[in-house]
Amino acid sequence: MRKTALRFGFALAVLTFAQPSLGYDGPVEKKTFALPSYTTVGGRTIKDVKIGWESYGKLNEARSNAILITHFFSGNSHAAGKYKPEEKVAGYWDPIIGAGKPIDTDKYFVISSDTLVNLNTKSPTTVTTGPASINPDTGKPYGMSFPVVGIRDFVNVQKALLDSLGIKKLHAVVGASMGALQAMEWAAGYPDMVERVVPVIGDAETNAWLIGWLNVWAAPIMLDPNWNNGDYYGRPEPTRGLAEALKIVSLHAQGTEWANKTFARKWAEEGKNPLDGFANKYLIEATLEKGAAARAAASDANSFLYLVKANQLFIADNGGSLEEIAKKIKARMLLLPGVGDHIFPPANSQRVRDAMKAAGKDVEYAEIDGPNGHLNGVIHIAKQGEAIRAFLAK
Amino acid sequence: MRKTALRFGFALAVLTFAQPSLGYDGPVEKKTFALPSYTTVGGRTIKDVKIGWESYGKLNEARSNAILITHFFSGNSHAAGKYKPEEKVAGYWDPIIGAGKPIDTDKYFVISSDTLVNLNTKSPTTVTTGPASINPDTGKPYGMSFPVVGIRDFVNVQKALLDSLGIKKLHAVVGASMGALQAMEWAAGYPDMVERVVPVIGDAETNAWLIGWLNVWAAPIMLDPNWNNGDYYGRPEPTRGLAEALKIVSLHAQGTEWANKTFARKWAEEGKNPLDGFANKYLIEATLEKGAAARAAASDANSFLYLVKANQLFIADNGGSLEEIAKKIKARMLLLPGVGDHIFPPANSQRVRDAMKAAGKDVEYAEIDGPNGHLNGVIHIAKQGEAIRAFLAK
Repeated sequence: MRKTALRFGFALAVLTFAQPSLGYDGPVEKKTFALPSYTTVGGRTIKDVKIGWESYGKLNEARSNAILITHFFSGNSHAAGKYKPEEKVAGYWDPIIGAGKPIDTDKYFVISSDTLVNLNTKSPTTVTTGPASINPDTGKPYGMSFPVVGIRDFVNVQKALLDSLGIKKLHAVVGASMGALQAMEWAAGYPDMVERVVPVIGDAETNAWLIGWLNVWAAPIMLDPNWNNGDYYGRPEPTRGLAEALKIVSLHAQGTEWANKTFARKWAEEGKNPLDGFANKYLIEATLEKGAAARAAASDANSFLYLVKANQLFIADNGGSLEEIAKKIKARMLLLPGVGDHIFPPANSQRVRDAMKAAGKDVEYAEIDGPNGHLNGVIHIAKQGEAIRAFLAK
Repeated sequence: MRKTALRFGFALAVLTFAQPSLGYDGPVEKKTFALPSYTTVGGRTIKDVKIGWESYGKLNEARSNAILITHFFSGNSHAAGKYKPEEKVAGYWDPIIGAGKPIDTDKYFVISSDTLVNLNTKSPTTVTTGPASINPDTGKPYGMSFPVVGIRDFVNVQKALLDSLGIKKLHAVVGASMGALQAMEWAAGYPDMVERVVPVIGDAETNAWLIGWLNVWAAPIMLDPNWNNGDYYGRPEPTRGLAEALKIVSLHAQGTEWANKTFARKWAEEGKNPLDGFANKYLIEATLEKGAAARAAASDANSFLYLVKANQLFIADNGGSLEEIAKKIKARMLLLPGVGDHIFPPANSQRVRDAMKAAGKDVEYAEIDGPNGHLNGVIHIAKQGEAIRAFLAK
């Protein structure tokens, strides 16, 4: 029981949810894509941009079989497979990506890239450029002087990566959560390049409700005196504030059913009744706190703030309304919201579906069931695996 | 538009939502109830306990017409009427309490009391005993040495107040949110004393999901270095942490529809595009922050932590299961959840209804519609005013 609880608590932390790989595609290699310079949507130039990427399967001669996988807020490009066969945990969507799986690497060249300002700056398998990177002009970390970037910037850097591989059409873009926002940005921003799009647990814009919650996620970092306006590199870092921020995300991304079935009103420690003092906690509290602290040790606080900003800024292709966004999109769309999602509730995907239908576009919709709310889109993606397979074959 | 937005943002802050009083019952007086000593459920003794209370209407000779109103997390006993006729804002449930209104003060003696560890320690119309009070044994504020108290302790002190007035039966207990928890505690803990109970936007226990969220609410206070383990009286107070905590509560208590219709993706200031830097915010962020800062100035951080603890500890009459709780209750029950409530969703009240029905108890259920989520139970209570009137007459 305790172990299960902890494992779930680490949901976003270590992504232990993915099932063991069924098909074997050989070890995965993390590669680095470098751009000498990139100019942001906001008009700022970043030198020496580097992002990591992985691929599974082979690009065909016509270069027409590429599927781009875009990752979620706290994730990176490790979507499938293992770096070494002896690893216990595979990439987060391994149940649907691989030989014979719904995103079939025997047919498709699947490519997945780290975003700019990726959270996992201390992970050896993440390559990113962001506030924790050294500014070549000063020789010091950017901190909060790094340019504000948005989802379109993530997409533009991905496009440069695809350009470098000679890929001019995408068979599909598939992503969960912030990955769905990137997928939607691809479909609306580069409509002639994207044939299919699968936004999983996402939306076409960040609404006011979520803008407010993203503010709540970020605030603890700025409350931590170690944050020091983002100038903390080489000093004690705002680890407490970052852990608190990650705790909020972990809970928000989970499901009510998960919480109540896993923890009920259990105490964190036997014999330590929460009635007897503030040090005595409930199991769900202790589990969330432990998971978040572990996660914070591998993450960068400023990068968290930049990711919050990027998500707040999101509206697909800077479209004025959902109707205008829908008009721009040429891709067939498969929307996959998660049941009980508190971040991007199914109603959000239903609005996108309705706008697409109203614009005469080809759109399908199905829900991913499970007790894990938003994370249903990561943990239980295989439940819609066959829907994804069929959609990709159309 | 801006004004409306701000007014909504201050929802929990100043309770400006109540409509002007229709009936006139004369000015309301804040009275003080004092207990020389009170022993908590946890077995600790608090000396010189004082709480404020108000009443509307007259107690009949049989002392059989009393209705107790219990307040929500950030509220106090000012449920109806005005202290002075010239005041602009009446008590929070004024639309349903007064002469001729659903809780009719021509018929009922309506009594409302401040809780222990009330949040509004700096409000001149709140009387409470809690961590900000002077410990008579030391002559200094208790801080975190104040005993942990729970919803049952709030109820027990209310019972002592009712005892002092010779009230042995309650025609009804009616409360919203934390007030609903007190109402449920009354019904399960003192079943022979409560004839009717109206839990509005509440539950019979705090589930794991909400225990986790209450932890999230509290955390920013402890991140603020001014908190100093609760020892801040007479020094700079943890106002930033407290404001952040109140900001989370304000958003959590609101509705998705409210946020999206009121703010959409509007910027806080014209010409200041959030893309251009971290100082440039969206309107919903600025509104929540402004409201929370104003609210923090009148509140006490330690009291917030004690209220969080009291809410986490809640399970009606320490009942083992919902079935056992339902068995204990003798009161007729009218459950009134709010549509789109993110704190106590209607599903929680439906569980209580089903358990009451299974136990063969008399239970009614209706939802309070509106765009304001949890706050529908405060702002839009009048929508179920006639249901309340009819229920009280049964």
